[in-house]
Amino acid sequence: MRLPSPMRRRGLAIGIDIGGTKVAAGLVDGDGRVIAEARRSTPGQDPRKVEAVIVDLVRELSAKHHVWSVGIGAAGWMDLAGSTVLFSPHLAWRNEPLRENLERLLRRRVHLVNDADGAAWAEWRFGAGIGQSRMVCVTLGTGIGGAMVMDGRLERGRFGVAGEFGHQIIMPSGQRCECGNRGCWEQYASGNALGREARELAAANSPVAQELIRAVDGDIGAITGAVVTKMALDGDQACIELLEEVGQWLGLGLANLAAALDPGMFVIGGGLSAAGDLLLEPARRSFARNLTGRGFRPAAQLELAALGPAAGMIGAADLSRIAARR
Amino acid sequence: MRLPSPMRRRGLAIGIDIGGTKVAAGLVDGDGRVIAEARRSTPGQDPRKVEAVIVDLVRELSAKHHVWSVGIGAAGWMDLAGSTVLFSPHLAWRNEPLRENLERLLRRRVHLVNDADGAAWAEWRFGAGIGQSRMVCVTLGTGIGGAMVMDGRLERGRFGVAGEFGHQIIMPSGQRCECGNRGCWEQYASGNALGREARELAAANSPVAQELIRAVDGDIGAITGAVVTKMALDGDQACIELLEEVGQWLGLGLANLAAALDPGMFVIGGGLSAAGDLLLEPARRSFARNLTGRGFRPAAQLELAALGPAAGMIGAADLSRIAARR
Repeated sequence: MRLPSPMRRRGLAIGIDIGGTKVAAGLVDGDGRVIAEARRSTPGQDPRKVEAVIVDLVRELSAKHHVWSVGIGAAGWMDLAGSTVLFSPHLAWRNEPLRENLERLLRRRVHLVNDADGAAWAEWRFGAGIGQSRMVCVTLGTGIGGAMVMDGRLERGRFGVAGEFGHQIIMPSGQRCECGNRGCWEQYASGNALGREARELAAANSPVAQELIRAVDGDIGAITGAVVTKMALDGDQACIELLEEVGQWLGLGLANLAAALDPGMFVIGGGLSAAGDLLLEPARRSFARNLTGRGFRPAAQLELAALGPAAGMIGAADLSRIAARR
Repeated sequence: MRLPSPMRRRGLAIGIDIGGTKVAAGLVDGDGRVIAEARRSTPGQDPRKVEAVIVDLVRELSAKHHVWSVGIGAAGWMDLAGSTVLFSPHLAWRNEPLRENLERLLRRRVHLVNDADGAAWAEWRFGAGIGQSRMVCVTLGTGIGGAMVMDGRLERGRFGVAGEFGHQIIMPSGQRCECGNRGCWEQYASGNALGREARELAAANSPVAQELIRAVDGDIGAITGAVVTKMALDGDQACIELLEEVGQWLGLGLANLAAALDPGMFVIGGGLSAAGDLLLEPARRSFARNLTGRGFRPAAQLELAALGPAAGMIGAADLSRIAARR
């Protein structure tokens, strides 16, 4: 394959973040800056329709710019080559040769990226993890996404499905998880876990939950992690306590990961990280308390992600640029 | 530094395995074969006395051979450079510059190796894990030792203390662990855990435990994991069930590691692995049952270690040979 010129290598790439409700695209330069953005609703689960939306977004963003490559990020498992979606939870993709389809349609180099891998890569290249030799990224949303950058490369495991930290079982016979198991970490330390605990508290009609119940006009089913986070930031004591509890579980799971992986830094991103220190401080205390060998070893820092929700598209774009060089 | 000649590179190295009760040394060739062995009792915890024993063992084994380098394996944390023992549980070593001391005494290149790292490296180079791109080694003894070989190198983390898989917390508020935490995996899936469960069963004076109690002449405190393993291999049903239980916990912890690390193979070594299929079959079933995403992903093989107790010294020797080349 012809090697790109240095200029092209530093050129623009498009990163696309396929979510359950929307498809977001960004035109990203070689320094990780998003130059332009566009988005569409996710058109159901039909792979052909999703491909059509991607083509449309790429046409829009590349109208005025030369675009070197396109990175596609989505929840799910991509093969090691970045060619095939093995499985995606929100989309009806099973062993889908998405890369080949899109390269034919777009006439550009395409690379598939797990969304958590994309976000971790972006944080390591341009965000909170710059310069770290061993960085573990944990994305707290509806579940827990995870990825590792070791020695300057994404560590994706033998089959490309490493980083499913949210599914470490920390409570045998515990809460049922969407994955089919019980007691997965993400049932205790995710945005969904926060919402569930808050709804239980409200359903118990505890005196401490009255503000929370009022905030949703008594519609307990409307309480989500985002509602709790916002109320906690506004000073509601019950919501602060709920975040503390989630933070404690977060710290315990991070201590498990530190025992196994010994990173220099954990980067905490995702929607729930909007809680900032209300989440991170209890997590730091619990991490310090649960870390094996504490006092006899150096310990990882816990830091908030720096790039926000754009991390996924920035990382997908940058990884596609690197893959296209090969 | 002068590069060694090809012959020297393939030359002999000594691997030393410092245990709580004995210090074992082996003269190891470039193909991982142990040419000669020697051993001494561990002379207490005084670093100077342990150094003297090491010097004595190296003199004995190098009397008739040219020895290129010496690898020292011990339980504990070594710094990334292989120079300093940060902490060792059985020996009074805290930030001990063991390498410098020994290089002065031995006039040979010395390299310090965590015992689990040494065993994993040996299994990857010469044993059960040959050719694996991502191998995780789990050593079941009094506790659980762990190490990873990824992409042809030991993955030791940012500070060199990765691989403490035995201290992932899988049961908050569970059994107290020597590390100071509660609910660590090694409290459920190690040789010590097997012994403890068997002693509890015997203390309950259950009808199913009568054979076990007879085997130790009623001295319940004398029941160890090794006793249970031997009786299970001889067909005792209660001991087989105890191993099944430990195997189930083993499989659960391995599923957690597979979620995070996605290796192609787990290699199971250590004293408890002498139980063979009586341990491995329940572990495989539990692993398959607890693996997140099962059915939608390829899964790691679980295999027994191939090199036995010599793995530690073979790995230490080989790693010292490689370090001496740098």
